[in-house]
Amino acid sequence: MPLVLDPAAQDLLFREARTANTFTDEPVTEEQVKAIYDLVKFGPTAFNQTPLRVVLVRSAEARERLVPLMSEGNRAKTATAPLVAVLAADNEFHEELPRLFPHFPQAKDAFFGERPVREQTAGLNAALQAAYFIVGVRAAGLAAGPMTGYDADAVQREFLDDDHTPLMVVNIGRPGDDAWFPRSPRLEYDDVITTV
Amino acid sequence: MPLVLDPAAQDLLFREARTANTFTDEPVTEEQVKAIYDLVKFGPTAFNQTPLRVVLVRSAEARERLVPLMSEGNRAKTATAPLVAVLAADNEFHEELPRLFPHFPQAKDAFFGERPVREQTAGLNAALQAAYFIVGVRAAGLAAGPMTGYDADAVQREFLDDDHTPLMVVNIGRPGDDAWFPRSPRLEYDDVITTV
Repeated sequence: MPLVLDPAAQDLLFREARTANTFTDEPVTEEQVKAIYDLVKFGPTAFNQTPLRVVLVRSAEARERLVPLMSEGNRAKTATAPLVAVLAADNEFHEELPRLFPHFPQAKDAFFGERPVREQTAGLNAALQAAYFIVGVRAAGLAAGPMTGYDADAVQREFLDDDHTPLMVVNIGRPGDDAWFPRSPRLEYDDVITTV
Repeated sequence: MPLVLDPAAQDLLFREARTANTFTDEPVTEEQVKAIYDLVKFGPTAFNQTPLRVVLVRSAEARERLVPLMSEGNRAKTATAPLVAVLAADNEFHEELPRLFPHFPQAKDAFFGERPVREQTAGLNAALQAAYFIVGVRAAGLAAGPMTGYDADAVQREFLDDDHTPLMVVNIGRPGDDAWFPRSPRLEYDDVITTV
């Protein structure tokens, strides 16, 4: 058995989990989001920089501000998902580094003194953490619906600030009726992986 | 129980898994890498674009070309890990889209006709897949050592081409002696997650 992860867990996280387009109205609780975060916060990032920041859109007022900023095809599901999360990269993550990377507190200035460098590394590492977050949503028995179709400048203006770059918006909940398309094909191993 | 994932699986993938800096000499087999890929290929990406490409550095000759391109602090572990993988984003992923996203084959040209757009979305989505890959390595009972400290231009020139942007280099194997530092602190829920 080349994988040691339990087959049921493989199904839960990857094989049977799907990107949901409809949801039931069962709420997603604060307790669930805390449990997800407390698991996936351990996923690795460079220099333990952990630049992901999350805005949970819970109020009706905030939802009404978000929905029109989504691409047309993403509006109905964003309007009806039990919980919507805006995931962003904190381009000023380096302020936390002396605490987060105590082995080498000088990294804050030695490696991350310049904003363009920070934006590049925050984008990559927050994307890693976004993937861990999606896996964590699935670990809670929920479905995630990550979306990159939205007006990024407007989302940043409405929900973030100049130091936070939006990465994606994620609908979260239990899948509803007709929640997904048939699974699309994946590339074969030999299309993706070469050996030298 | 807010998480439905088995606690042993939570430990394997997140809580007890660590970024390894030393490895035993037990080989990582092709069968293991295939099992990892066949699991994590299902992780979601925008338009199912799946732009991650992987170069497995297996020959001594290729290893000798890679090691000097790593940052000094990454050389010894890259020289001794049982397997080293170069992870990259395919900026020409759109060529596969008619096959990968059959619901809307026009996406290839309608959304991804321009190279800067492709580079941006390939970078984000390949990073998501890099995180799934790291989770998959752990699902195989192995440790990953992802690194972003290397000469990216030189790695691209030696191991990739103009259409493939390196994302990270990942050492893979069973952890050896003194494989890691003590776990660094993580941000608290309230530092990362806000509700509106």
